[in-house]
Amino acid sequence: MTLRPPLLVTMGDAVGIGPEIVVKAFAAGELADALVVGDPAVVRRAGAPMTAVVDAPADRAGVPPGCLPVLAPPGLPAGLAALPWGVVDARCGAAAARCIEHAVVLVRQGQGAAIVTAPIHKEALAAAGLPYPGHTEMLQALAADTPGAAPPVRMMLANDELRVVLVTIHQSVRRAIDAITFDAVLDTLRIAHRAARAWLAAPPRIAVAGLNPHAGEGGLFGDEEQRVIAPAIAAAQAEGIAASGPFAPDTVFMRARRGAFDLVVAMLHDHGLIPVKYLGVEQGVNVTLGLPFVRTSPDHGTAFDIAGQGVADPASLVAALRMARRLAVLS
Amino acid sequence: MTLRPPLLVTMGDAVGIGPEIVVKAFAAGELADALVVGDPAVVRRAGAPMTAVVDAPADRAGVPPGCLPVLAPPGLPAGLAALPWGVVDARCGAAAARCIEHAVVLVRQGQGAAIVTAPIHKEALAAAGLPYPGHTEMLQALAADTPGAAPPVRMMLANDELRVVLVTIHQSVRRAIDAITFDAVLDTLRIAHRAARAWLAAPPRIAVAGLNPHAGEGGLFGDEEQRVIAPAIAAAQAEGIAASGPFAPDTVFMRARRGAFDLVVAMLHDHGLIPVKYLGVEQGVNVTLGLPFVRTSPDHGTAFDIAGQGVADPASLVAALRMARRLAVLS
Repeated sequence: MTLRPPLLVTMGDAVGIGPEIVVKAFAAGELADALVVGDPAVVRRAGAPMTAVVDAPADRAGVPPGCLPVLAPPGLPAGLAALPWGVVDARCGAAAARCIEHAVVLVRQGQGAAIVTAPIHKEALAAAGLPYPGHTEMLQALAADTPGAAPPVRMMLANDELRVVLVTIHQSVRRAIDAITFDAVLDTLRIAHRAARAWLAAPPRIAVAGLNPHAGEGGLFGDEEQRVIAPAIAAAQAEGIAASGPFAPDTVFMRARRGAFDLVVAMLHDHGLIPVKYLGVEQGVNVTLGLPFVRTSPDHGTAFDIAGQGVADPASLVAALRMARRLAVLS
Repeated sequence: MTLRPPLLVTMGDAVGIGPEIVVKAFAAGELADALVVGDPAVVRRAGAPMTAVVDAPADRAGVPPGCLPVLAPPGLPAGLAALPWGVVDARCGAAAARCIEHAVVLVRQGQGAAIVTAPIHKEALAAAGLPYPGHTEMLQALAADTPGAAPPVRMMLANDELRVVLVTIHQSVRRAIDAITFDAVLDTLRIAHRAARAWLAAPPRIAVAGLNPHAGEGGLFGDEEQRVIAPAIAAAQAEGIAASGPFAPDTVFMRARRGAFDLVVAMLHDHGLIPVKYLGVEQGVNVTLGLPFVRTSPDHGTAFDIAGQGVADPASLVAALRMARRLAVLS
């Protein structure tokens, strides 16, 4: 019998809540098929009763129950576990990045089933010379087979009620409007369709939310719907994708929640994230679509304000682990 | 004993669901202190068992129970009750506008306690030569004491869990960004504060949502928060308004729902309306703040697709009637 390779859980920023929620998820029995990619001392400081340092994912099988297996990637900065909680530090940014890079190498070699990332801090990353606005962009760059050949990826946010895929993410609304092109919308529909096909029995019913109030009100409140979004929907339909819209943003998420659609494509970061987070971030999961591997993460940040206090809620990480497990089997 | 003047309920577009939900609210006992401003024949076609045509609001007192009192404003087009359901018609637009105009005259004369408006259709209004994008703008124009002296007004959407006041409404996102000025944000905070003071015991805690993802992420994702929104919040605070923010749009509504704030000021129409409508439009109420009288309306449109079928849900109109009653007493 061949064991499936483990889920790879990156520890995130060492002085945020990442290590703590990883340890709590382990204590709750949610890491039975997972391996932490991180600094063992950081994980111990976050409350792990015992850690087992492994050299390769395959060694996970020999780790006794009750021991949290940790793989330390080469090149981690020293002394991370002595840094103060909740303070931006370039060493934490560098360490978080090393863990992600190493996890990508392992998963692409078939040594990991999927990657689940604990939260990183953008400023720490930038201080370490890695100016990615978030995991999504960093993973996209790491997924390039040759420099500059990064695949188009999209952020999906999902909970039990709603799945949203975003056309634009980490940029100002002003720039986002210019980034909403025919190609960007069509690519989003293709990526969302391909991903959703894996986890749905029937062809995924994809609703497209407009950009403007009332989806432009027939051109009165903006022409992006007529000029860009509707033509991209038509092109997707011509490819056999069950896309519809553009719909008024203010009611399409409510309709999807009630079952009218399997997922919603949103033009702006907050059009999509406001409804996903409205009932609570505890169950929200972030999934990167379009990568050559499965990657999920919790739907929240490093929470520096409560780091080290033992009060962080692991629920969203647990949801991310479960989602990664499901998607890894399906894909 | 002096009777309070009645709530004035405008019938809305004659071939939409407006008349039907008015009649249903009456049947449910929710119009006991209200008077319909509309066409009696239209109201009868929508299912009213008996109507009593009154000439002035004061005559409402003499109407027997079971009879729906209707005041027909002068100048209504003829034949409205014979028009097909759900088809845009200039006569319906003109009639809807006449009802609103007349209700404003009455309420400003002290003959009405508040105005509750059933849905109108923008295209019908435009066909009648009245190019208002919605009630809000039309009421604002009608509230001007001299031409061009319209008061600044804001749209508030409220349900049992969340109250949102909007800085911009019926325009493209591209134009809305330019309309988010220091004055627009500060005016919104003043209007929201003044209104909320009337219905809250303690000074209203007002959260301001940013425009950009993560409220601009310190300037990385747009500078409107630093350049415009934060200074307006500071100016409001200097006036004694308990405003805070700007907060990341994707979590501030969730936090308000859980009780952290009394209301949220949102920069964009759909930032605010997506969360208000997410759990269902049935309980949502639209309130125009800043007018010299109380005005509420249901949180949905004319629903031409189901007009005349008897299936429209009066819940949001009922919520609007109750809210108008409460605000009329308080203000």
